[in-house]
Amino acid sequence: MIAHLPLCSIPSPKTVLVVGGGDGGVLREISRHSSVEHIDICEIDKMVIDVSKKFFPELAVGFEDPRVNLHVADAIEFIRHVRKGKYDAIIVDSSDPVGPAQELVEKPFFETLARALRPGGVLCNMAESMWLHTHLIEEMISVCHETFKGSVHYAWTSVPTYPSGVIGFLLCSTEGPPVNFLNPINPIEKLDGAYHRKRELRFYNSEMHRASFALPSFLKREVRLLRDSAGPEQGTRIS
Amino acid sequence: MIAHLPLCSIPSPKTVLVVGGGDGGVLREISRHSSVEHIDICEIDKMVIDVSKKFFPELAVGFEDPRVNLHVADAIEFIRHVRKGKYDAIIVDSSDPVGPAQELVEKPFFETLARALRPGGVLCNMAESMWLHTHLIEEMISVCHETFKGSVHYAWTSVPTYPSGVIGFLLCSTEGPPVNFLNPINPIEKLDGAYHRKRELRFYNSEMHRASFALPSFLKREVRLLRDSAGPEQGTRIS
Repeated sequence: MIAHLPLCSIPSPKTVLVVGGGDGGVLREISRHSSVEHIDICEIDKMVIDVSKKFFPELAVGFEDPRVNLHVADAIEFIRHVRKGKYDAIIVDSSDPVGPAQELVEKPFFETLARALRPGGVLCNMAESMWLHTHLIEEMISVCHETFKGSVHYAWTSVPTYPSGVIGFLLCSTEGPPVNFLNPINPIEKLDGAYHRKRELRFYNSEMHRASFALPSFLKREVRLLRDSAGPEQGTRIS
Repeated sequence: MIAHLPLCSIPSPKTVLVVGGGDGGVLREISRHSSVEHIDICEIDKMVIDVSKKFFPELAVGFEDPRVNLHVADAIEFIRHVRKGKYDAIIVDSSDPVGPAQELVEKPFFETLARALRPGGVLCNMAESMWLHTHLIEEMISVCHETFKGSVHYAWTSVPTYPSGVIGFLLCSTEGPPVNFLNPINPIEKLDGAYHRKRELRFYNSEMHRASFALPSFLKREVRLLRDSAGPEQGTRIS
């Protein structure tokens, strides 16, 4: 989901950055998109990559794609030196935002991400569990609203191995060609990439894409409170 | 979800049967539907009710609705003596279908349920986890296709406290006025029942209703296999 939600929401994504994602799973899924020409991945911990290659070859296979350029570095530093507007999409697949990864949910980092995206480019950020971290989700949505001038949406899906069985995603776009995250313009069912047929998708499809933006009432209310305090104009951008 | 998915899919439900549900939570949710005139609940274990009243008053409050008629009995027996076509909706909120509750997922029971429903009446049956019990779900769908001549659909939602974090629902309708489960004809947002305003809904809404029918690709494939073996005409009724 974390790869396809953003990449299926824009036509012909070409340049993609992954922050974190050292296990290779996100790369494997990006590989299905034949329009993509260049994938940068910035993983801070080389051992994650080594361990994944040794024990999780079905995930680490993502590193075998020749379009992948690995940077073992701190993304906070890496992103500062990226050319403005370089990426069509950025995917942040990081650790929980406490301790070392705290900076990855703060405004300065989101600002550098927005700067690294082309106009109408998209960000997909792992965004916690709606059951456990409502307050943190609110904060992230608030920061993204201040930073991203396109649209900001929250989506979620089922992951049995994650605490509370769900994971959320924050989808944002920069000012420019409008992005309608809710209805994939570049549906996965029409992709015909070389890597696409080798491994059948087991979970994601366009129906699941649309459904992932449906929010329980308790979360909608939290988001509405935020929307009301942000003013009506910004509010229309939250689903 | 288990109460609103069926009750929001038909106009003005009046007569409802709950099988199991001794904790009272399903009754509480049915109470929100002001069109409902009569609720039978058939719970085999009185102690479940007593314990819920003692320790879970927020669930057991469902028993306070004057429309509720409690039957402490084996539903297999109870349903046999019900007048044909009595109910607009039946909700089966039973234990896991192993051991004592095994009969509740077998064809004879589904046949008596179908008989107890009016033409175009609806059944909502708890239907396991898509992550853990794909085969069992397939079997249940297969039996329901043989038994229910209206439509058969599978839905799911997130429940953090259940194994694998999800629970599924099997929604079936009998021959008669067609039922479109996927798009609620009787949306909860328009309900104005006496009980409705006292307790705000925290989870279910019409968006979540529609989204719950989106299935991951692995489950769609299982269901498609089933559909193909059942022939094209039946197949069109599975989402």
